[in-house]
Amino acid sequence: MKNCIVAQSGGPTVAINASLAGVIKGVTDSGCFDTIYGSVNGILGILDNHILNLTETIHSPELLEQLIHTPAMYLGSCRFKLPNYRDDDSSYSFIFKQFERMNIGAFFYIGGNDSMDTVLKLSEYGAQIGSPVRIIGIPKTIDNDLMVTDHTPGFGSAAKYIASSILEIAHDTFIYAVKSVTIVEIMGRDAGWLTAASALARNEYNSAPHLIYLPETSFDKDEFLSDVRELLKKQDNVIVAVSEGIHDSTGNYVSCGESIADTFGHSQLSGVGKAMEYLIKDNINVKVRSVEVNVLQRCAAHMASATDLAEAFASGQKAVSLAEEEITAAMVTMKRTSNQPYTIEYDYAKINGIANEAKSVPREWINERGNDVLQPLIDYLYPLIQGEPEIQYKNGLPSYLDVSHLITKKW
Amino acid sequence: MKNCIVAQSGGPTVAINASLAGVIKGVTDSGCFDTIYGSVNGILGILDNHILNLTETIHSPELLEQLIHTPAMYLGSCRFKLPNYRDDDSSYSFIFKQFERMNIGAFFYIGGNDSMDTVLKLSEYGAQIGSPVRIIGIPKTIDNDLMVTDHTPGFGSAAKYIASSILEIAHDTFIYAVKSVTIVEIMGRDAGWLTAASALARNEYNSAPHLIYLPETSFDKDEFLSDVRELLKKQDNVIVAVSEGIHDSTGNYVSCGESIADTFGHSQLSGVGKAMEYLIKDNINVKVRSVEVNVLQRCAAHMASATDLAEAFASGQKAVSLAEEEITAAMVTMKRTSNQPYTIEYDYAKINGIANEAKSVPREWINERGNDVLQPLIDYLYPLIQGEPEIQYKNGLPSYLDVSHLITKKW
Repeated sequence: MKNCIVAQSGGPTVAINASLAGVIKGVTDSGCFDTIYGSVNGILGILDNHILNLTETIHSPELLEQLIHTPAMYLGSCRFKLPNYRDDDSSYSFIFKQFERMNIGAFFYIGGNDSMDTVLKLSEYGAQIGSPVRIIGIPKTIDNDLMVTDHTPGFGSAAKYIASSILEIAHDTFIYAVKSVTIVEIMGRDAGWLTAASALARNEYNSAPHLIYLPETSFDKDEFLSDVRELLKKQDNVIVAVSEGIHDSTGNYVSCGESIADTFGHSQLSGVGKAMEYLIKDNINVKVRSVEVNVLQRCAAHMASATDLAEAFASGQKAVSLAEEEITAAMVTMKRTSNQPYTIEYDYAKINGIANEAKSVPREWINERGNDVLQPLIDYLYPLIQGEPEIQYKNGLPSYLDVSHLITKKW
Repeated sequence: MKNCIVAQSGGPTVAINASLAGVIKGVTDSGCFDTIYGSVNGILGILDNHILNLTETIHSPELLEQLIHTPAMYLGSCRFKLPNYRDDDSSYSFIFKQFERMNIGAFFYIGGNDSMDTVLKLSEYGAQIGSPVRIIGIPKTIDNDLMVTDHTPGFGSAAKYIASSILEIAHDTFIYAVKSVTIVEIMGRDAGWLTAASALARNEYNSAPHLIYLPETSFDKDEFLSDVRELLKKQDNVIVAVSEGIHDSTGNYVSCGESIADTFGHSQLSGVGKAMEYLIKDNINVKVRSVEVNVLQRCAAHMASATDLAEAFASGQKAVSLAEEEITAAMVTMKRTSNQPYTIEYDYAKINGIANEAKSVPREWINERGNDVLQPLIDYLYPLIQGEPEIQYKNGLPSYLDVSHLITKKW
């Protein structure tokens, strides 16, 4: 019987280890592969021969359960982009030799857009050399910007964290009897899904966030100042949720931070919250604070959505069953079959329509002025944050799986 | 029978409403006062006649329970400093006239150092005019810097949030196979208690934070760079926990942000994390990120310490029993009678030894080089973060008490 290998890549999420657990459970239940290997630091682990034997390390149901609830990548990650194999196929031939050496029947890659680029390239190269290795992508991203799938594992938990943080920040903000504006900066370079989730914080007493800005529309600073002024006539506290990636009508980022390109050619953003804080300070005489929701929006496993973890786990299992059915060059997808009650089906899509594309928030789900989201978007988001997983605590802190294999490693 | 009035002041904590609930429970159980009034926005509510009837609004055990778990101030807060009554006693005479008008027998003020200044001044003025109103302070602050009491309600929950955040940030950081430094900036202007709590994140696999800087010692940037360089020889990822208030040997804040004085003459700090990030960038060729743990460290009620909430509640009850015993000009205190098992006793101290003093971390609980904390400090902190309260969720988010009386209010 053949073995299989799994790796994780891109930015962390709270649910990416649940997908890894799903792969392990899928293989164990079906018995379709012998040993489950884990490549450490994404595809780099295969290139550098840094491989764990997951069949041995995750050997009990208790460890599997703990893996589901552990944030970020148990196997580590990478931001490595394979070259075009037509220009240089040396990494490719090495990877497929490694597959052969380890008697690999399937490679599962859990990641976002850039990881799906790797799935696409390995699939194409594998087809070209006639490799029998099945190459399957399992989606994850807090950005929710992968094509074809209704939504992406990892997003629901980040959305729940954002919504609950906005609610807690609202409680924090309402206490002072002074006029104030609070800007909350949320991750999301090109897609505003996560920032839109801030709207879920609204309830019978809380109408915050009062303004929401996504990268799908152009930001006009005069309109923004005018909207804030209008709100301050009616209420003491204005809370603004803003995506890090908003830009003006000419496409320039509003961020006042540095803008440098990363390995994948993305701009690294920082500081849109600060930029808007200064904008208010310069124009309106009011207390202003900007809050950059930090990396916890992608790693606060104690605030995970039970729905999200269950879907991430099922996506991992689905990937195994796809490999069993001899499907390759594909990514697991979710299709929403009903919204009330919320039901989804797991399916797959060919990888060549997914990689290097990004799914934006539809313009018709954003109000005309571009400062709020509309009900269909809230209806879409609502089921994804439901349910609270039972978190185990030890010594007063969440009990996560030992990741010392990532810490002690030297490159 | 007389009535009583309670107010909350200063910065938010996760436990300050538990103390309010304790006052309500204490009065209800003892029957020592008739109506419980709540002054909205601290002492300002008495001055501006903005008073709630808490006996009516918190009328059921369910509402009392929800109040315990609601972050920030149910009654709102203020940053108002009473003038010296020898210079101007107009506010004082108005406040005591209000007390008389409402037939008040006791005033409970839940707050930190500045609120205890108000308790002290009102106590002195009350004694001078021969007022029978008991004035009792109930401590709260995430800074843990109040004198006489072993620790302060609100601190344990913030400490638990900081420790779990550092652990989650560590998981987030360990995933990339690149050398990196992560700076985590934590609240605490003059006292390093909360930053010290980051050490509780250490466990069998995690040694982060690797460096901890408190305002109780002087920060030397050359020693810091040298320590980071040494660590990077042994490990890939260095995580640094730093208090916003650290300063160099001449007393200058390391922060690169603006430094302006607030109403109480405190310097408003921002940006020590950024300052240290730039310091590393300019001197060491390594990936650097700074994370400012935002206001959630004081309002993330979903991560409260059950021990902290229970103690905050008991402190509120104790305040009522002090008033019953005709004690005034006092603050509730906690005395640790044993560390293993952890036990405390509730007592009180005269307010004049507490107000306008601040308790620092003892120098002997910090290592000689000033870049880590020692075991006695960890032993002191450990019991305070234990236990997880049962949080009620509604529609996927923590279910907090309606605070629309704070939102709709117009000043």
